[in-house]
Amino acid sequence: MVALVGDERLDYLFMDQSMQIIQSPTVFSYSIDAVLLANFASIPLTRGKMIDLCTGNGVIPLLISKNTQVPIIGVEIQERLFDMASRSVEHNQKQEQIQLIHDDINNMPHFFGNDKFDLVTVNPPYFKTTSEKQFNKNDHLTIARHEMLVTLEQVIDVSSQLVKPGGKFAMVHRPGRLVDIINLMRQYKLEPKRMQFVYPKAGKEANILLIEAIRDGKPDLKLLPPLHIFNQDGSYTKELQQLVY
Amino acid sequence: MVALVGDERLDYLFMDQSMQIIQSPTVFSYSIDAVLLANFASIPLTRGKMIDLCTGNGVIPLLISKNTQVPIIGVEIQERLFDMASRSVEHNQKQEQIQLIHDDINNMPHFFGNDKFDLVTVNPPYFKTTSEKQFNKNDHLTIARHEMLVTLEQVIDVSSQLVKPGGKFAMVHRPGRLVDIINLMRQYKLEPKRMQFVYPKAGKEANILLIEAIRDGKPDLKLLPPLHIFNQDGSYTKELQQLVY
Repeated sequence: MVALVGDERLDYLFMDQSMQIIQSPTVFSYSIDAVLLANFASIPLTRGKMIDLCTGNGVIPLLISKNTQVPIIGVEIQERLFDMASRSVEHNQKQEQIQLIHDDINNMPHFFGNDKFDLVTVNPPYFKTTSEKQFNKNDHLTIARHEMLVTLEQVIDVSSQLVKPGGKFAMVHRPGRLVDIINLMRQYKLEPKRMQFVYPKAGKEANILLIEAIRDGKPDLKLLPPLHIFNQDGSYTKELQQLVY
Repeated sequence: MVALVGDERLDYLFMDQSMQIIQSPTVFSYSIDAVLLANFASIPLTRGKMIDLCTGNGVIPLLISKNTQVPIIGVEIQERLFDMASRSVEHNQKQEQIQLIHDDINNMPHFFGNDKFDLVTVNPPYFKTTSEKQFNKNDHLTIARHEMLVTLEQVIDVSSQLVKPGGKFAMVHRPGRLVDIINLMRQYKLEPKRMQFVYPKAGKEANILLIEAIRDGKPDLKLLPPLHIFNQDGSYTKELQQLVY
């Protein structure tokens, strides 16, 4: 039995009854964004290794572990979330495949040296921090959502250092930041190659951006078909269900 | 009666029987891209003025003239196309609203000086010219499609100079060039604000990109709902028909 702390609960991983993950409404719960990124990224299947930055409760390593044999590293700066992730990995008996690191992602390039990755994934904080004073620095959700401890530029810089030449970097973010993202990616030699926009419903503006770059890749971007999450009646679309299964 | 040259023909403007345009299969025919741009751009309705660069046979000024009272300037470097455009403008009795200039767009900032525009539109050549030798420099279609006489950077640089601060720049291009486009736009102070991807059919990759920027605008990009051109049976989609009417 897994030990749960406070208001934690054990949820099934999205539409999959074979794995469970520790969540908490006040500390951290994964969003559909993580599920979409895990499905979007080009995962090395049998050879190589990957690293997930800002891993939170470990949702992306757990989701990806279903589809690959390669070792997966997850990095989380918040001790409380790292602890949740560690217990979830253990609960699903994934300790041999998934290694968790409790540290600032900015330390990873030094930590791994020339030990480069085939894939770097990240579901980073989305929102710019205009004034730190308006935030409660001890709030786990605030840190996960706002660029308080790490900026978009640091995420992209660190990822560019960690990924092999020819290796892949996959990120989920908000469409509103696309211009910043594309400018920074090229600045750090991560050439965007695949992009997909996710729309909550037909007729609405996109609210999720999935983007994958190749380190030192040749310029040429592919725009995948749009993905809609919900039908007009609020049920999940067929395309989402097909994607996830 | 309008005089037609060689294999020219007089076509109705897309789904609109009220206007006609001179086309030629060997010299120049407009594509759906121009129609989409004319509908996508934020057109000043009663005040201000606009300019269409690389205007070809004048399709964009003619399409836009149906929806606005403001003066429209069209610039075309190829004399043969400029001549087609001039006859089409005359045929539709739009000489008072549409003024055509036969010149290189690179001369326009000097020509117009501080005389700035509320909207700049452009459907530029899409393809990079790797070696000029592989092309027939006298071929009208080749010049219209390849960056032989003007580059993407020149298009964006010139547009940035022609548009007022706070004015708009709308372009249609290929999704594969998005990274170049976004980098150049920001370099020339055109901040992307609205973007839409056009897909030939459901399930296919996007093949047309519509993007609008504001000169000196604040970063924040909106992703419009995806647009599909054809149904699976090859007929035009309802969304396209609604957009164009």
